[in-house]
Amino acid sequence: MTTLGILGGGQLGRMLALAAAPLGVHVRVWDPDPHCSASRAAEIFARPLDAAHAGEFAAGLAACTYEFEHIPHAVVEALERAGVPLRPAELAFAAKHDRLREKELLTSLAIPTAPFAAVDDLAQLHGAVERMGLPMVLKSRRGGYDGKGQAVVRDAAGIAAGLAKAGGRDVLAEAFIPFAREVSLVAARGVDGAFAAFPLVENVHRDGILRLTTAPAARPLQASAESLMRRLMDHLAYVGVLAIEFFEVDGALMVNEFAPRVHNSGHWTIEGAETSQFAQHVRAVCGLPLGSPTSRGHSAMLNYIGTEADRAAVLAVPGAQLHSYGKGERARRKLGHITVRCDVASERDALAARLDPLAPWA
Amino acid sequence: MTTLGILGGGQLGRMLALAAAPLGVHVRVWDPDPHCSASRAAEIFARPLDAAHAGEFAAGLAACTYEFEHIPHAVVEALERAGVPLRPAELAFAAKHDRLREKELLTSLAIPTAPFAAVDDLAQLHGAVERMGLPMVLKSRRGGYDGKGQAVVRDAAGIAAGLAKAGGRDVLAEAFIPFAREVSLVAARGVDGAFAAFPLVENVHRDGILRLTTAPAARPLQASAESLMRRLMDHLAYVGVLAIEFFEVDGALMVNEFAPRVHNSGHWTIEGAETSQFAQHVRAVCGLPLGSPTSRGHSAMLNYIGTEADRAAVLAVPGAQLHSYGKGERARRKLGHITVRCDVASERDALAARLDPLAPWA
Repeated sequence: MTTLGILGGGQLGRMLALAAAPLGVHVRVWDPDPHCSASRAAEIFARPLDAAHAGEFAAGLAACTYEFEHIPHAVVEALERAGVPLRPAELAFAAKHDRLREKELLTSLAIPTAPFAAVDDLAQLHGAVERMGLPMVLKSRRGGYDGKGQAVVRDAAGIAAGLAKAGGRDVLAEAFIPFAREVSLVAARGVDGAFAAFPLVENVHRDGILRLTTAPAARPLQASAESLMRRLMDHLAYVGVLAIEFFEVDGALMVNEFAPRVHNSGHWTIEGAETSQFAQHVRAVCGLPLGSPTSRGHSAMLNYIGTEADRAAVLAVPGAQLHSYGKGERARRKLGHITVRCDVASERDALAARLDPLAPWA
Repeated sequence: MTTLGILGGGQLGRMLALAAAPLGVHVRVWDPDPHCSASRAAEIFARPLDAAHAGEFAAGLAACTYEFEHIPHAVVEALERAGVPLRPAELAFAAKHDRLREKELLTSLAIPTAPFAAVDDLAQLHGAVERMGLPMVLKSRRGGYDGKGQAVVRDAAGIAAGLAKAGGRDVLAEAFIPFAREVSLVAARGVDGAFAAFPLVENVHRDGILRLTTAPAARPLQASAESLMRRLMDHLAYVGVLAIEFFEVDGALMVNEFAPRVHNSGHWTIEGAETSQFAQHVRAVCGLPLGSPTSRGHSAMLNYIGTEADRAAVLAVPGAQLHSYGKGERARRKLGHITVRCDVASERDALAARLDPLAPWA
């Protein structure tokens, strides 16, 4: 029996654990909350995430992975001392601790991204506006997700308020990209360098949170997306699943950001692909052969937040599959997702529209 | 959060628990062994299966189901006293406690089965041979599965030894059916009487244990199989998944036996159908709408026994999916299964042949 460690017991850790079980991989999740979302599917190591507990957590692990990228360096070092390989390695998320470093990394690899500037005060922001124009997106360099710590400055009158909303200093200013749509690619790289990419998908956000993913999308851009993905993965000597969010602008791709882990825009793969992103990640980080990423028909995935879905109503829709994360209700919290898979795209879209009012958003 | 009780924590309980989690259904498994196969996927109630513990087990359960049919009547009564609905109800497995009663039930419903006789001694067996001819199959009326407690009598010289092998008394003698092949139907009935049947599949046994299931099979017989299934389910006021094994004889169906639960010949549905038999059973017994039983392409499922499979070798076969049950190795013990799903039947058969040597059988 292989034991895999996972840092974090949210819904991603939970779905990784559910996918690991059939592969004969036992999962030990490190999460301070013994009742975390993963707690029904895995052994929970309910201690604070600090180096002092890493040795105990690491005992007997074949490898360790994570569901979030804010892992203290001291924990990484302690796992290393315990002889447990961290996959993906620290290099993959180090840049994610600071949006500015992430942008610099992408730029250094000649991966197209929006023009950007570091901003620490109002004067620097005015300078950036002068060079890059408006509108502009301001993001806190550290922390912040699902639209938190972000502001869009549309005109000169909104500059000061925007800066304040983004935290006032340690801000990344990005040119606003008038994109046609957002697409994302989820792919895996094995210990042996093997590569497998799921089809590119289209994402629609609402209130700064992913609402809807449809798959597959934009086949003409698949090769281009995979090429950028491989460049990033090879640079990072990446092992596991990685997601890149792209803006599609004038028929070309520009990277918004990447996530060194399984990703919300890959949840449709549980039903919609030959291998789910969760099983694929477990295979990769455990040194097993990758599975087929081929999609089956056309899928749509709807997130729901804040309130648990009416299970019976959702399941009464033909083909609808529910994925509740077993989390308590709280405003803006992702509580689950709903997937539908069809052989025909138009049928998929009709069912997604029918499911939309059944996926709570509050 | 709905909590579902399951009696038995073997691989069926485990796969039910893995399917229940995304539906927001928490599972409490009653199994004396705290390290049973289901223990990584469910809360385990590790007490002896007797009425004295039923009240504690039942606390807070919305419903209770089971993975095996040998449930003591006192436990059923105790669950009833605790106000927990048992689904399927006792009527569904009462006949399964005695192969003779099962045959009588089928006969009373005009469901075709092999001619049979009850045998308690050598004289009765000689009488049965005289009436029904040879070869003949002898089965212990109670207990016995996967070919245990069974004997085939091929000639007069083997009569006495066959009877001894089947236990000497309390034996069911059945005419040997020279069937073309064995097929099975897995279907579900909801609390509201809704009905959904998976496609008929073909089963190949080895050493008395299921080796290979291919799906779908025998579409011309689908309607006939569903009609017999509905007759049995309606008689039992059945709620949940039920499996019927048939012999195909001269293009018609004859029932071998039924199983009031999820069934080994339905494991292919995890990848090969829109809804797995496990999710379907959870939906049914929790009073939720049934899912689509439509198959996706062509599937093959291979059991492996005795020895754990070489995981890396299996997963290196294109499209192969592994389902390890997390059980210790033991001769003739089912340890897992391997599934492959293809769009074309011939491709499926080629991959199944390639997987055959990778599925241990000892």
